[in-house]
Amino acid sequence: MKKVKISASSEYEVLIERGLLKKAGELIKQTAKGSTAVIVSETNVFPLYGEYLKESLEKEGYTVLSFVFPAGEESKNTNTLIDLWEFLAENLVTRSDVLIALGGGVTGDITGFAAATYLRGIKYIGIPTTLLAMVDSSVGGKTAVDLKGGKNLAGAFYQPSLVICDPDTLTSLPDNIFSDGMAEVIKYGMINLPEFLDTLEEGTDIIDIIETCVKTKRDIVAVDEKDTGLRQLLNFGHTPAHGIEILSEFTVSHGCAVAIGMMIMTKSAIKAGLCKKEALITLEKLLKKYSLPTENVFSPKEIASRAMNDKKRTGKDITLVIPEERGKCSLRKIPVSEFEEFISGAF
Amino acid sequence: MKKVKISASSEYEVLIERGLLKKAGELIKQTAKGSTAVIVSETNVFPLYGEYLKESLEKEGYTVLSFVFPAGEESKNTNTLIDLWEFLAENLVTRSDVLIALGGGVTGDITGFAAATYLRGIKYIGIPTTLLAMVDSSVGGKTAVDLKGGKNLAGAFYQPSLVICDPDTLTSLPDNIFSDGMAEVIKYGMINLPEFLDTLEEGTDIIDIIETCVKTKRDIVAVDEKDTGLRQLLNFGHTPAHGIEILSEFTVSHGCAVAIGMMIMTKSAIKAGLCKKEALITLEKLLKKYSLPTENVFSPKEIASRAMNDKKRTGKDITLVIPEERGKCSLRKIPVSEFEEFISGAF
Repeated sequence: MKKVKISASSEYEVLIERGLLKKAGELIKQTAKGSTAVIVSETNVFPLYGEYLKESLEKEGYTVLSFVFPAGEESKNTNTLIDLWEFLAENLVTRSDVLIALGGGVTGDITGFAAATYLRGIKYIGIPTTLLAMVDSSVGGKTAVDLKGGKNLAGAFYQPSLVICDPDTLTSLPDNIFSDGMAEVIKYGMINLPEFLDTLEEGTDIIDIIETCVKTKRDIVAVDEKDTGLRQLLNFGHTPAHGIEILSEFTVSHGCAVAIGMMIMTKSAIKAGLCKKEALITLEKLLKKYSLPTENVFSPKEIASRAMNDKKRTGKDITLVIPEERGKCSLRKIPVSEFEEFISGAF
Repeated sequence: MKKVKISASSEYEVLIERGLLKKAGELIKQTAKGSTAVIVSETNVFPLYGEYLKESLEKEGYTVLSFVFPAGEESKNTNTLIDLWEFLAENLVTRSDVLIALGGGVTGDITGFAAATYLRGIKYIGIPTTLLAMVDSSVGGKTAVDLKGGKNLAGAFYQPSLVICDPDTLTSLPDNIFSDGMAEVIKYGMINLPEFLDTLEEGTDIIDIIETCVKTKRDIVAVDEKDTGLRQLLNFGHTPAHGIEILSEFTVSHGCAVAIGMMIMTKSAIKAGLCKKEALITLEKLLKKYSLPTENVFSPKEIASRAMNDKKRTGKDITLVIPEERGKCSLRKIPVSEFEEFISGAF
């Protein structure tokens, strides 16, 4: 079993092993001593692993409750949050009990935020079942729900007590959901891991992929838990991706949008004389290898306008993540008004 | 101006002075550099001081927004919280802006919780306008809203950036609201300030009362920010008070219930041979001086049953705050089942 230790405002471990789900009860019992465990999951994932997890928890003596909400990003809202809060209150869940997020990023985000705020904070455990959630949401402590006014606007920085990654759960994923996760994996390589890019080109075990990404995110987050500086490197490709998601009315998935966004940023950086061409060759090769898109159908004007729309929130400048060479990105601040011109370089 | 420095998970000052409200803009500008200030208040308090505060903020260059909700504990719910979150999102309030809680405990609790969670945390300033909020809510960082399943069940530990106490705002309070605050003031004396009890008996300036209580709460909270041990001293009288509030369907105010609760706990402690009689003499004298009730109309059985109802949440034992002598309380754990017998000593 691979163990990655995370030291944020509190300490916890990310465990990675095939078949780990069947040991979940035992592992959770070591960190959560309470009597009740609450599985939080959604209608796609719970039927696959819910009962299995429940049995594993009951074997350790937990009273197990399940809160299952409709699958999908639409559920990441205040209604689901309040239903979960009230569910915990009705069932007299105490501060010594534990919540378990079984599912993808949406499940982790809602569960983490509910855990951060119910009784002003109770323990939670992450069991991510998508690659994206394993490599991205399992580290960093960002929890949130969407408001009508925008995505992730209400939330908290809050750390899980344990994260259990069982790559066997990935086999039940549709291929496109797996690819979505690979977009973020490739992103880690592009940011600061040139050797990892080699490994990805050659092909490697999923366990190693998860471990490398978790460690990389850990190291970046460790120096910037509250998301003000270095952590912005993790946004590579995400600014144009954000515009693309909106323009497509979210028919282009997050991972696909990030893939296209990384292409746009890399091409633009080359055009601006900031980046070596080899970075683009590697990026394009990897995206294709993992069935991710490389071509964009929207105009720089459209993308810039949508991507910048909510940047009013943070002021007049934006920080771009600029690739410099294969496996190396850096941060660069530019005025919001210059973003369109910059990405025009990719077209 | 009196300044009390609070060192919790973050540091801030509680400022106390008559007429301080008119300097609020200037004082806030020193801690909050953003461009927008959002006044959060309710329908009783906003008409009294809202415009006044707004002008003071505008003089410092802030764009001022106001969010005003219906006065009363009923508003401390998830609907008000969500309305406030969406209000902030609609108005593109950023992480560098500031919320200002203008009002009593309900306003402080909601504003603090919204500030803790909007964009995963923005600054907020407390301007308490009731004695209870000045001496109790201004220190400790407890923020929350009520759920259908119980009071204060969703919330966060989150510190304000500054607290401004202007005792002139107390003059607009109905007498019974002032007395309510005095119940908590007397509580501080009973817990660990024998000399302060002398001062209260003699009569003293409100500024000194606020300063003493804020400092006392600070010192207790400092060693126990997360409310697990010593801080429980602050619950003196609150366990029976909780039962009395419910039994009266909240027609007995919190302060009056605490007054009666302290009487019950002190009489019971004397009966059990744990407390000197002089403590009761002082307590009764002070409660009467400040127009607070000393007599109880409910039976120990009724009180115990209601007060213990939600103790299922924390397990089989409860920690009682036991007065030992005038100005000295200590903690004592007993099984939930023995609480009724203990308070029967007061009847």
